[in-house]
Amino acid sequence: MSPLAPRRLVILTEGQWHVHNAKTAMGVIRFGTDRVVALLDSAIAGRNVAEWLPGHDIPAVATLAEALAGPERPDTLLIGIAPTGGKLPDAWRATILEGIRAGLNVHSGLHTFLGDDPEFAAAAHLAGVEIIDYRRPPQRSETAVGRRHRPGSRVILTVGTDCAIGKMSVALELRKSALAAGDAAVFVPTGQTGMMIEGWGVAVDRVISDFVQGTVEWMVEEGESRGDWLIVEGQGSLDHPAYSSVTLGLIHGSTPHAMVMVHKPGLAEHDFDHLPEASFPIARLPEFVALHETVAGLVAPSKVVGIALNTSLFADDAEARRIIDWTESETGLPAADPVRFGADGLWREIHRRVEALPWVRDNDAQRVE
Amino acid sequence: MSPLAPRRLVILTEGQWHVHNAKTAMGVIRFGTDRVVALLDSAIAGRNVAEWLPGHDIPAVATLAEALAGPERPDTLLIGIAPTGGKLPDAWRATILEGIRAGLNVHSGLHTFLGDDPEFAAAAHLAGVEIIDYRRPPQRSETAVGRRHRPGSRVILTVGTDCAIGKMSVALELRKSALAAGDAAVFVPTGQTGMMIEGWGVAVDRVISDFVQGTVEWMVEEGESRGDWLIVEGQGSLDHPAYSSVTLGLIHGSTPHAMVMVHKPGLAEHDFDHLPEASFPIARLPEFVALHETVAGLVAPSKVVGIALNTSLFADDAEARRIIDWTESETGLPAADPVRFGADGLWREIHRRVEALPWVRDNDAQRVE
Repeated sequence: MSPLAPRRLVILTEGQWHVHNAKTAMGVIRFGTDRVVALLDSAIAGRNVAEWLPGHDIPAVATLAEALAGPERPDTLLIGIAPTGGKLPDAWRATILEGIRAGLNVHSGLHTFLGDDPEFAAAAHLAGVEIIDYRRPPQRSETAVGRRHRPGSRVILTVGTDCAIGKMSVALELRKSALAAGDAAVFVPTGQTGMMIEGWGVAVDRVISDFVQGTVEWMVEEGESRGDWLIVEGQGSLDHPAYSSVTLGLIHGSTPHAMVMVHKPGLAEHDFDHLPEASFPIARLPEFVALHETVAGLVAPSKVVGIALNTSLFADDAEARRIIDWTESETGLPAADPVRFGADGLWREIHRRVEALPWVRDNDAQRVE
Repeated sequence: MSPLAPRRLVILTEGQWHVHNAKTAMGVIRFGTDRVVALLDSAIAGRNVAEWLPGHDIPAVATLAEALAGPERPDTLLIGIAPTGGKLPDAWRATILEGIRAGLNVHSGLHTFLGDDPEFAAAAHLAGVEIIDYRRPPQRSETAVGRRHRPGSRVILTVGTDCAIGKMSVALELRKSALAAGDAAVFVPTGQTGMMIEGWGVAVDRVISDFVQGTVEWMVEEGESRGDWLIVEGQGSLDHPAYSSVTLGLIHGSTPHAMVMVHKPGLAEHDFDHLPEASFPIARLPEFVALHETVAGLVAPSKVVGIALNTSLFADDAEARRIIDWTESETGLPAADPVRFGADGLWREIHRRVEALPWVRDNDAQRVE
């Protein structure tokens, strides 16, 4: 969980930039502090990331050689995808080897650890470069012990109605607004993209299931040593056929004082590698909010204090704002699209509501030994 | 997931037979088909397991030498505990080495893999014996794909209000009653003790969290190739501060048509290695039953069709029966203590109720390709 030195990245997304499983690349470009010198993706070679993410002037190139020959030489090749199951596409193997041999460090968030691959490891040793596997779990095997939060801390978890709809982005935007408001806010990364951005954390989906809650509890303890307002990155969704158990591990492991529900209007079904005949609809917000409070409350009381919408399926700003208003009246909670319109207003509401929670007061009143 | 040849076991529980974390030893003795020749536990040396488990004539001995010198020489040393976190007590190291050197195979369900310990591995190689780590996960990294159940199959999961209250025992008793009733029943082991008894399965708490639901889905598929009535061993509880995520992985991974709720009357709090100031009460049954149906229903419809009570805290049979009757009226569901009084009646009720579930009918009506 140590911080990282700034890097100059070339990000590999070969053929996958357009689709949602290039979310690692998207996240690192939008929220990271490293310089991104090129996107390696032959499907969009010659175009520029700014077309999709205005303000991010990053050329897309077809070959690693082009990236290496550019005006700024990269020092790190970052694997910019997080496919279902986290495996390395075979076609990328040659590119990774080429990068290692050209003296690039390799940073990966795949379940398959590149550093354990004999061919990659030997090449990295020879080239004197480093392979970092962000999903490698900590050498720690502890179950949760029922730790109470430090008095003065406020723990907020982002939850959601699906995976890959922006729980991490919302957490990062809320952190930004919190810092701007003078709150000592900390982002607690629980996935490989958040870790790549922030330089610490644990990819909880890679932890042995028996230790998920214990690991999250420990990450919150670490977060509480870094600041007062913890914004914990959520994963998956409580009704996701494949990932709900990781979601619940985050809820019961972080025992958040409050939750922010992330939702993507217009999305009808969970989208993952399921069988063609299967179909899993997205939940309705009011019931899903209530369910989260019930399920979290099985271990510690918690309340959903705001809705963060991802309105990206609606191009028209006015329509997006209508959806936000409608969501507020549907749920009785403050709503916003933090990525599209900023999170300052939503953060003010969240701050006020969290401070008013009786269990936050109770936690502050704990005797400190 | 291959079956095992019958063994002659000496079971190590050193000092822990009395306490609930010798549940592995208890389970293997009560439900296993292997011959148990001795219990190695100096705290109760000279006594007999039959004192605790009538009908199981197994002497407790203080040293491995005594077990080896007995009338039946064991061929396997089985580690009879499953402590929180699954680590090997240091004091047992010498005993295990002694066993290996005496030519015993070693079977363990600990999180710490004995076969990966260089000293144990070298000794085992020299002695020509085998070390089996039941918790070693399969070489398989697949997330759930939303598989539907085979037409004709009925999947029942045991869930519960706490861990270590008898979900496995209930599943095994139900299997026995189902077989006696002529139903092609299969026990699906999801923990190391169940695996030691049954000879196949996966310890799901050792699986990488991202793959828990995919692994359980795959185990159910395997179970459906072995019979029609699957009784899946549950783990933990949905409100357990440390283990709830594994529980939810079993619920959403097995998508059970029905659930049997296991409950231990008289137990006030979850008992695990938590901090002294923490306290986690056991849930009330009616609300907890409803919550399970809601949470399971997020992925596939399911119903709690019976309550299996562990009345072991009540010595008097008449009182136990009063509690069972009271539970039936409290929940409106059939209840029994399967271990104490048998499960035949409860199974008849479960069978009838499962057959009447509309989603069981729907599943049977699927076209088979």
